[in-house]
Amino acid sequence: MTQDRVFNFSAGPSVLPEEVLLKASNEMLSYGNSGMSVMEMSHRSKDFLSIIESAESHMRSLMKIPDNYKVLFLQGGASLQFSMIPMNLFIKHKKADFIDTGAWSTKAIKEAKIYGEANVLATSKEQVYSYIPKLDSSSFSNDVDYFHITVNNTIYGTRYTPENIPNTGSIPLVADMSSNILSEAYDINKFSLIYAGAQKNIGPAGLTVVIIKDDLIGKAMDSTPTILDYKTHVDNDSLYNTPPCYSIYICKLVLEWILGQGGVKGIEQINKYKSNLLYSYLDESNLFKGTVVKEDRSLMNIPFITGNDELDALFIKEATSKGFVNLKGHRSVGGMRASIYNAMPVDGVQKLIALMKEFEVNHK
Amino acid sequence: MTQDRVFNFSAGPSVLPEEVLLKASNEMLSYGNSGMSVMEMSHRSKDFLSIIESAESHMRSLMKIPDNYKVLFLQGGASLQFSMIPMNLFIKHKKADFIDTGAWSTKAIKEAKIYGEANVLATSKEQVYSYIPKLDSSSFSNDVDYFHITVNNTIYGTRYTPENIPNTGSIPLVADMSSNILSEAYDINKFSLIYAGAQKNIGPAGLTVVIIKDDLIGKAMDSTPTILDYKTHVDNDSLYNTPPCYSIYICKLVLEWILGQGGVKGIEQINKYKSNLLYSYLDESNLFKGTVVKEDRSLMNIPFITGNDELDALFIKEATSKGFVNLKGHRSVGGMRASIYNAMPVDGVQKLIALMKEFEVNHK
Ligand SMILES: Cc1ncc(COP(=O)(O)O)c(C=O)c1O
Ligand SMILES: Cc1ncc(COP(=O)(O)O)c(C=O)c1O
Ligand SMILES: [Mg+2]
Ligand SMILES: [Mg+2]
Ligand SMILES: [Mg+2]
Ligand SMILES: [Mg+2]
Repeated sequence: MTQDRVFNFSAGPSVLPEEVLLKASNEMLSYGNSGMSVMEMSHRSKDFLSIIESAESHMRSLMKIPDNYKVLFLQGGASLQFSMIPMNLFIKHKKADFIDTGAWSTKAIKEAKIYGEANVLATSKEQVYSYIPKLDSSSFSNDVDYFHITVNNTIYGTRYTPENIPNTGSIPLVADMSSNILSEAYDINKFSLIYAGAQKNIGPAGLTVVIIKDDLIGKAMDSTPTILDYKTHVDNDSLYNTPPCYSIYICKLVLEWILGQGGVKGIEQINKYKSNLLYSYLDESNLFKGTVVKEDRSLMNIPFITGNDELDALFIKEATSKGFVNLKGHRSVGGMRASIYNAMPVDGVQKLIALMKEFEVNHK
Repeated sequence: MTQDRVFNFSAGPSVLPEEVLLKASNEMLSYGNSGMSVMEMSHRSKDFLSIIESAESHMRSLMKIPDNYKVLFLQGGASLQFSMIPMNLFIKHKKADFIDTGAWSTKAIKEAKIYGEANVLATSKEQVYSYIPKLDSSSFSNDVDYFHITVNNTIYGTRYTPENIPNTGSIPLVADMSSNILSEAYDINKFSLIYAGAQKNIGPAGLTVVIIKDDLIGKAMDSTPTILDYKTHVDNDSLYNTPPCYSIYICKLVLEWILGQGGVKGIEQINKYKSNLLYSYLDESNLFKGTVVKEDRSLMNIPFITGNDELDALFIKEATSKGFVNLKGHRSVGGMRASIYNAMPVDGVQKLIALMKEFEVNHK
């Protein structure tokens, strides 16, 4: 890490690989032989087309995306997907099943209700979303257009493991992967639509990636604006209007960095190693403890508490002064949260644990 | 200009001030004392809040935006505004008047029709959009919710001058200023809503600026998704969801650069000087000529032709090889187009003219 950089545990936007930032900085005034910044490039130029095509092909190879899925680079954040999904997928029943694992699921539910019915099959709300509800597939509806889950809950630090993805049979499974896309291997064939705001594991805010199965495309409600119909973006290779070009370029660089880490399998090992270090310490510590049940723990977002609000505040203050920043938990949970996305170096986690140990010694 | 940079006449995304790119490059790994890139900052962090607040206050002072207007930083491009505007403004009549000055007006009309009636009051289509229709205000409808114009047509190179903005009385005037915002002084009080994709005069693609009068806020149709209701963004100071943070940061730098040029009045003088150089040459040249009637000429986008397709192609090829790039006209018009936005240096225009003169001598 360069001298003056901090360890940034922000939940999003969040840490990016330093190599990516260095490359972006070096190429800022002229990309390749283009004589201009990527920010200045026409989205129809050869140079930019090659950037967006590389981004897509890296995404396909990293996530093993089959040919019958499209990869789209959109704007509007994951939040716009909360609306685009029902607009495009409420094809027959105008109804969907949801599992509520926290604030993000709740928002997806709220927006779907504008266009039809949102059936909440299960929720972990009564336990402050500290676990993923166990599902009995016999409770799944038959008369729904899709089934929606939030694969990793950024705020509460829960996740559906790859083994634990609900089997919805012929009902399309729709998944918000904003905060754990590209962090470990999921079988794409289990999903019909995956979406993710870029600002955690993909790149800068302002880009949303959507991976959508062919058979869901072209069936949007009549009243859907052209720009909110997935088919528009499929037919135009994500260039219907000016895309967020620079964010797509940074995405390409991030994906190349992941390839250099051994792909998703490689980064998964590192992520498991990093999160394990922190969870093991939380389990053995007498001061700090995690808030999520073991089997549903996120690899990316790790909330923890001392059980004493003043001590929490003191820890956050001390950590901040030492260059470990954005450790404050979400306002709805309190305590601390360490978001350790792909780009957080192992070193950052090790040093955080050392700091926590020191704090524990001083405060017992 | 740094040695290896080209003169980039792209219509958008387009040239940015070199000083802005240099600053962005230098601050890429650590912004101020933050120890992180702006791309890595939480949108709720102090550092980022100060960036977005500066961007807004610069925009307000540069454009002299009165207090009863809100300034919003959104995603989705100007194209998403084509839908958000009717969703939010079709309050009573579900009908709007439009002046059709080309492809962008046409798209705005098409999307408005999804939600109500779009009445085309006048069009210059029969003359390939080479002029702005003269308007008789007695033809304006009384039973419309708004009146829409495209202030500067990027493709055809026409513009409503500040003196020529239609007086719509009590009917809200809505204006697409994507390609000439901040290029010369317009009286904001004449408008109720101004929108602009950032990728010409504001910053990178992926950011849309909306300036909206208070009395239009909070009246969206019931079926409007939360994220497409202007009120949502007003109530959350453009932080309802993660905004395109890095684009907002570049916007702030661009606005500071404009302030350094003497503000909008200063840049207007330079723009008039630059466009005058090129128009004067086009008028005196025996080979090249402009395509737009004199009184409606854009300061930003200058289409021109030789009248011979082969010569046009040859000129574009020679220019490109000499580092004058993106001079090809839009596919719907042919010929050439020089987009000379705020950030195009005077030098670039002078050298382009020198090149055209040389070409003229060699091809007469
Ligand atoms: C799981 C999840 N879904 C959705 C969102 C909303 O994303 P955006 O801010 O891009 O709309 C977030 C943002 O942090 C998130 O963590
Ligand atoms: C005048 C005008 N309006 C709208 C648009 C569409 O903007 P966006 O691509 O950001 O949707 C453009 C794009 O060039 C434009 O020039
Ligand atoms: Mg949540
Ligand atoms: Mg413990
Ligand atoms: Mg047009
Ligand atoms: Mg002439």
